[in-house]
Amino acid sequence: MENLSLGKKEPVVISIVATKSGSGKTTLIEKLIKIFKAKNFSVGVLKHDAHKFDIDKEGKDSYRFSQAGADNVIISSSEKLAMVQILREEKKLEDIIKLFGDLDLIIIEGFKNNNYPKIEVHRRGVNEDFLCNNLNFNIESFIAVASDEALNIDIPVLDLNDANSIADFIENRFLIRR
Amino acid sequence: MENLSLGKKEPVVISIVATKSGSGKTTLIEKLIKIFKAKNFSVGVLKHDAHKFDIDKEGKDSYRFSQAGADNVIISSSEKLAMVQILREEKKLEDIIKLFGDLDLIIIEGFKNNNYPKIEVHRRGVNEDFLCNNLNFNIESFIAVASDEALNIDIPVLDLNDANSIADFIENRFLIRR
Repeated sequence: MENLSLGKKEPVVISIVATKSGSGKTTLIEKLIKIFKAKNFSVGVLKHDAHKFDIDKEGKDSYRFSQAGADNVIISSSEKLAMVQILREEKKLEDIIKLFGDLDLIIIEGFKNNNYPKIEVHRRGVNEDFLCNNLNFNIESFIAVASDEALNIDIPVLDLNDANSIADFIENRFLIRR
Repeated sequence: MENLSLGKKEPVVISIVATKSGSGKTTLIEKLIKIFKAKNFSVGVLKHDAHKFDIDKEGKDSYRFSQAGADNVIISSSEKLAMVQILREEKKLEDIIKLFGDLDLIIIEGFKNNNYPKIEVHRRGVNEDFLCNNLNFNIESFIAVASDEALNIDIPVLDLNDANSIADFIENRFLIRR
């Protein structure tokens, strides 16, 4: 695919958001990763999590070093690099994005307050209201709603149950002309 | 401590190496982290691992995103940031060091071929020969051997069973005048 040869461009960043959990954001992102990887795009994912989360396994050296108080532990091999960093203050989104390096697409989940293009996930019975018309957010940044029901809303409504069509929307809008 | 106010200096990098595993490198590093953190130094640890290693837990979102094929997954909160990156080629040590950011001390384990100052761990019955006099390595970079037996060798021999004295050696040599 010709758009793959232009790897030095800034990654496209898309935010997948919802009014609350249970809408299926994580499952949608999982599907989008598989679709974009099958199309040979390189993909990064950034997820905002609760204050404390455990990623490393008890007993592993990385866990031992973190438990001993290390501010930052990196495990690296020829195939993989893993880092667990204790933060003294929350990192700026732009600085986190820089950590990804040279990728085609970065999908972010759970950061609602930013200027990156956003797709709002709407599931009937879960999400009663919307972010994309809530003036507490940057409503200009919402480019579509992925919904499991028809909506009367003035931005494109994509089928939440058809991840391929959502990927096509992202690809056509952001990746095809790179 | 006055040397803590100078946080913008390049981190001191120390490599802990041994001819083979079982010498107690990981346990020594764990002790050094605790000692240096108790002295209010910020500490990073870098470990070289086998080709494939699992850090994230099955079922967690980070694991799901990696399994779906994401090239790089970052989970972030106000207190912690974790990254799992798939590498197409092994990263250069200098580029990994840059990921640590602004720290006082970085302890690296398992990278024998570099120019950073090295302390060789020697345990009786485990390590029969030495790296610090092996011309396949940069022997000038070896600054001490941490051993559990007396050695007739022409660089300082530290007591492997006294991590405080090893920390003092590192602090006096590299951190005290920063």
